[in-house]
Amino acid sequence: MANTSPLTIWCNQPFPEPARTELINGVAPHRIIFPPNLAANNLAAGGPDPLLAEADIAFGQPDAKQITELPRLRWIQLTTAGYTRFDNETVRSALKARGAVLTNSSSVYEEPCAEHAFSMMLALARQLPQSLHDQFRQPGSWNAYHHRIHSRLLEGQSVLILGYGTIAKRLVELLSPLRMKITCVRRKPRGDESVPTITVEQTDAHLPQADHVMNILPQNKESDRFFDARRFPLMKPGAIFYNIGRGTTVDQMALLGALVSRRLAATYLDVTDPEPLPADHPLWTTPNCFITPHTAGGSADEFSRLARHFLANLAQFTAAGSMSDRII
Amino acid sequence: MANTSPLTIWCNQPFPEPARTELINGVAPHRIIFPPNLAANNLAAGGPDPLLAEADIAFGQPDAKQITELPRLRWIQLTTAGYTRFDNETVRSALKARGAVLTNSSSVYEEPCAEHAFSMMLALARQLPQSLHDQFRQPGSWNAYHHRIHSRLLEGQSVLILGYGTIAKRLVELLSPLRMKITCVRRKPRGDESVPTITVEQTDAHLPQADHVMNILPQNKESDRFFDARRFPLMKPGAIFYNIGRGTTVDQMALLGALVSRRLAATYLDVTDPEPLPADHPLWTTPNCFITPHTAGGSADEFSRLARHFLANLAQFTAAGSMSDRII
Repeated sequence: MANTSPLTIWCNQPFPEPARTELINGVAPHRIIFPPNLAANNLAAGGPDPLLAEADIAFGQPDAKQITELPRLRWIQLTTAGYTRFDNETVRSALKARGAVLTNSSSVYEEPCAEHAFSMMLALARQLPQSLHDQFRQPGSWNAYHHRIHSRLLEGQSVLILGYGTIAKRLVELLSPLRMKITCVRRKPRGDESVPTITVEQTDAHLPQADHVMNILPQNKESDRFFDARRFPLMKPGAIFYNIGRGTTVDQMALLGALVSRRLAATYLDVTDPEPLPADHPLWTTPNCFITPHTAGGSADEFSRLARHFLANLAQFTAAGSMSDRII
Repeated sequence: MANTSPLTIWCNQPFPEPARTELINGVAPHRIIFPPNLAANNLAAGGPDPLLAEADIAFGQPDAKQITELPRLRWIQLTTAGYTRFDNETVRSALKARGAVLTNSSSVYEEPCAEHAFSMMLALARQLPQSLHDQFRQPGSWNAYHHRIHSRLLEGQSVLILGYGTIAKRLVELLSPLRMKITCVRRKPRGDESVPTITVEQTDAHLPQADHVMNILPQNKESDRFFDARRFPLMKPGAIFYNIGRGTTVDQMALLGALVSRRLAATYLDVTDPEPLPADHPLWTTPNCFITPHTAGGSADEFSRLARHFLANLAQFTAAGSMSDRII
């Protein structure tokens, strides 16, 4: 249905300037309301908020239970790519029953996350973290021969990508000039994927062939500790394991074992469980374990991109057009 | 001319196994001779060698003056991409006068060097070196917000690539899915380049626009200290400077100044002058200066790839076919 009368947009995502002004100016003639006392830079989920009852649209991280109880709410846009709290039958049936829409911000995060995943692959192929370890710990060391013979070419190697969403699709595009053997894992392969795609059940048979295992699994019951003490030993000796999905999908002690035993050549993690990873966790100091602190989705213009993505979807919503990143 | 009688190949490149056996078996029915006392892993130039006088073909790093004096020598293949010592009129006219061929190994190094250059760009865009600095110096630190807002997307940014050879061409291919604004600098643009290409003289006018300046200049008189105290201040504030060409093309104290003054956001060097860079050189410990020890061309199968590239060219040479990476 097309909406022409002014709507009320509730937003619990703290936006720094200039993105905040861009958002406020951009929603006119609609009204945007912010709950008081928004924590700066808080990207985590908030709790129920009485103000939400006044809203036609929620933008940010509303409470998953509360949105099922507010019939006025016709569209929810999440400011994350992940939507674990909303990925259940209660939310799905409540929203469907009243024709409400759920979208996320995956197209905002697909580019930084795909570039981040690719950067971790290329960095390890070229031994950048190992060279930087030398530089930061022993400035002046020049282990040229050692790092050269441990360097790899990504060209021609094989990669197994788990979780076939927008990030994986973009990563496949970025990898295309490298002529790698790419296989994706998807809950339900549809046959329209641009690369060979297998089911979760077929993963174990493919793990022994992959030089690189890129984990972009979302957090849910099926993915919990998917990479465990049974699966790491299935991997090709010398393989490299990456995680830019969710920390809960990995049994970190099993990963530690695979690194210590040198089954894996290296691992690069952008997510851990919990976050921050405790300072005394052995993964911090395990050789060939490299960590970025959940930065894969970040970029200098992240908040402007979130605001613009919302405004583009708002225009589609009010014109009854086609909205991007629609989940329900 | 086609050669059918067995030839003598002189090789002063030390080859580790299994590449050495692959090379020796591969040259049959021709004869390969190695000077005694080859230093292991020595990729540097050797001096004159009396054995070279017996050879029809030289493979490795022969003495540049000696090859001009040996009329029997009909083909020289260098084991590097660089050929500074041979890039002069004396060598050129001597070889041309007797119809001798000079080839290098640039197609062996184009893939690792292009992947290395790309890895440095992606790593800095995603703040990997900065996150790793935290991990290695203060395990447990979790500066997520700081690293996120300093992260960039390469998508849409501009890059100026200096030195249009096989490495630059491959880098342009690797960058293509990122939709960057790519400009190359070439001694003599021919109009057949896949991206906009300018002359060296036009460089200064383009430096202020480039988010990324990728230096792949070879070492020669014109390139000596090309990046100096006059050119760094021309760069866009916040630009990133990379060097995977030769250390002599950069005035390192001028680079240091551009980093300290924050004109440049960061630099990533794979080459320095001299190499190794002395342990007390301030670039080792300057914030946002990151160094790999001349590893861009390396890979686990580097020596096999060098041997195979030579064998492929040997087959072409004896069949009077088209040789790859021909310089003269």
